[in-house]
Amino acid sequence: MKPVITILAVNTGSSSIKFSLYESGEREELLFSGSLTRIGLKDGRFSVVDPEGRYIDCERVDAPDHPAACSHVFSWLKKHGPGIPDAVGHRVVHGGPRHTASEKVTPELLDSIAELVSYAPEHLPQALNAIRYAATELPGAFQVACFDTAFHNTMPPLAKLCPIPEEYRRQGVQRYGFHGLSYQYILSQLQAEGDPLARKGRLILAHLGHGASMAAVLDGRSIETTMGFSPAGGLVMSTRTGDLDPGVVLFLLQEGHLDSTGLRDMVNKKSGLFGVSGLSDDMRDLLDAEAKNEQARLAVELFCYSARKHIGALTAVLGGLDMIVFTGGIGLYSPEIRERIFAGLEFLGVRLDHEKNLNHSGIISTDTSPVVVKVIETNEEVTIVRETRRVLEGG
Amino acid sequence: MKPVITILAVNTGSSSIKFSLYESGEREELLFSGSLTRIGLKDGRFSVVDPEGRYIDCERVDAPDHPAACSHVFSWLKKHGPGIPDAVGHRVVHGGPRHTASEKVTPELLDSIAELVSYAPEHLPQALNAIRYAATELPGAFQVACFDTAFHNTMPPLAKLCPIPEEYRRQGVQRYGFHGLSYQYILSQLQAEGDPLARKGRLILAHLGHGASMAAVLDGRSIETTMGFSPAGGLVMSTRTGDLDPGVVLFLLQEGHLDSTGLRDMVNKKSGLFGVSGLSDDMRDLLDAEAKNEQARLAVELFCYSARKHIGALTAVLGGLDMIVFTGGIGLYSPEIRERIFAGLEFLGVRLDHEKNLNHSGIISTDTSPVVVKVIETNEEVTIVRETRRVLEGG
Repeated sequence: MKPVITILAVNTGSSSIKFSLYESGEREELLFSGSLTRIGLKDGRFSVVDPEGRYIDCERVDAPDHPAACSHVFSWLKKHGPGIPDAVGHRVVHGGPRHTASEKVTPELLDSIAELVSYAPEHLPQALNAIRYAATELPGAFQVACFDTAFHNTMPPLAKLCPIPEEYRRQGVQRYGFHGLSYQYILSQLQAEGDPLARKGRLILAHLGHGASMAAVLDGRSIETTMGFSPAGGLVMSTRTGDLDPGVVLFLLQEGHLDSTGLRDMVNKKSGLFGVSGLSDDMRDLLDAEAKNEQARLAVELFCYSARKHIGALTAVLGGLDMIVFTGGIGLYSPEIRERIFAGLEFLGVRLDHEKNLNHSGIISTDTSPVVVKVIETNEEVTIVRETRRVLEGG
Repeated sequence: MKPVITILAVNTGSSSIKFSLYESGEREELLFSGSLTRIGLKDGRFSVVDPEGRYIDCERVDAPDHPAACSHVFSWLKKHGPGIPDAVGHRVVHGGPRHTASEKVTPELLDSIAELVSYAPEHLPQALNAIRYAATELPGAFQVACFDTAFHNTMPPLAKLCPIPEEYRRQGVQRYGFHGLSYQYILSQLQAEGDPLARKGRLILAHLGHGASMAAVLDGRSIETTMGFSPAGGLVMSTRTGDLDPGVVLFLLQEGHLDSTGLRDMVNKKSGLFGVSGLSDDMRDLLDAEAKNEQARLAVELFCYSARKHIGALTAVLGGLDMIVFTGGIGLYSPEIRERIFAGLEFLGVRLDHEKNLNHSGIISTDTSPVVVKVIETNEEVTIVRETRRVLEGG
């Protein structure tokens, strides 16, 4: 029997901190989870719920910035948590070229992550901040950085290569891929279900949420993914463009009265579903509106069209397809989006079962469909807990 | 019988002018063709050859700029050609949102094209220049602008949509597509061969040259293509990146010490095969070198990998595939590239005949291959001649 220890999983976003405390033994047992949202904005909220979703705490907290938010979260944990956790695992969105697996936090690692800030300027400063606060407020806890890029380190050199001159590639510009903690969880669930395709097969894992990507997994290893150097690449997303003709970026820089900061903002926060619809970045709003709003309909269709093209491209990389798994907010809860993505993909051997597709988990393809389609709820925090334990135990 | 008239086809590149004089009647009959190369560089050459490739004229001409080059070409035509041609057709690379078919040149059209220069700053000024010189030097000739984007105007709104905010789309930023004069020729050849797939079928036309793109053609009409707003998008090319994660562009702007002019240069002239290999932008050089040069091998493989992914994506848009046609310098003369592009695409129903694949025209798939693969030499000039005649006759 594995001894039971407590592990805190911390996930910092650009304007939020989420945390979950687990008991980790033979399995992972959630004790509570919480979040502080709308950091730097008005009407922020701090809440903690038990595994049944009952509030342990809930209050309005307007945190002016990430340090203030971290201070609030870790002080609360120190005061209200069941003692200092044995370990704290942090999601770190970008590991750059050198960090290709979860690592114990050391001063050297912090310096190294700090050097990567320009790779993910909207995420890494926040993660570094949380790691520093955790060290101060939860002294003695073993800290681990879990990189969201690590899962894709198995991609072959060709999939990592960015077709630009070497002097720029030498600065670390390559295709990394993201959502790795989510994909790792999905694969572990497939293994837990005893699905043989988890170890031997041609899979597309589709994490479709506010950020959206897909991974091509061959025999249990990532060989290609839609996001590249940054989380702005690949699929059309809620507010991000996905891959673009660089001529568009150049035109906007030279004629569109945008500087590089304005361009970063446009590409990451004002495009995608939001940019096309002019209405909302939330798929549910757009699905509600599309019957009467042509721009909303176009946005939804473009999302599905982009997903369909990327499924085609990843299938070409895999040399055929055995399974597609959907996860993420849209992937889980939008049967109509799944259905529309597959329109025209019958040639790949995908046969959706329209009844089953209304479910939010399990197999949603027909019994005779050559390609199995599954819906699985992801859990990045559980991956963080497992990775943290593995590193703690020197695995 | 159609009366026989003479039509000059003019094709301006960023550092060259090519021209071909045809007799246009029931068919197009080439009288001579010529070019002035290395404009603005040293060791420029002006040459004219007859249909058998015999030199009519050949001399060293160092043209310092496009006006000088145009002056030389049109003066020569006036002096040595068989009188003023009845019509002159110009390849114009970008028609923007308003020019969706070939058009008679008028002062208003010239003004309108001049407004589009920022869409294709490396091509449109040269084309405008040639049109103006032709008007002066070949007075009375009916002039037509043949837009390379026009063929793709049949693409549905979804394929034209760029997922950015409306205020930027309103500036004309949408997906246009290029190589239209080439694709139009290929389709006309398929029709001339009596191939029923030209009118009814799911085709990918692959123009693989220094610039490279693919078009998805459904029942004779373009429904999707790999290039978008500019010729820098889509496939990895000889010196262009193809589609990029916009995060790469933003990183290079903010960290790579490149301004927008440097970035334009990098994206268009220093990337792709050349950027990856650091050796050459010519596929023949790379194929020669790859056995001993790992970077050359990676460049070749990346080209094929990129082509394979786009074939997968376009097939998803078409809902399956009936035929692929290769053209362009690489598409025509590199059987090894065609072979390597198809590695792993057996699931699409592509079966190459390895003997036939060594040919540079005709069918190169096996007799039982579900997907027919053809190689057809393109001729953009003939499309220009036909389009020019059609506009001249008010068709």
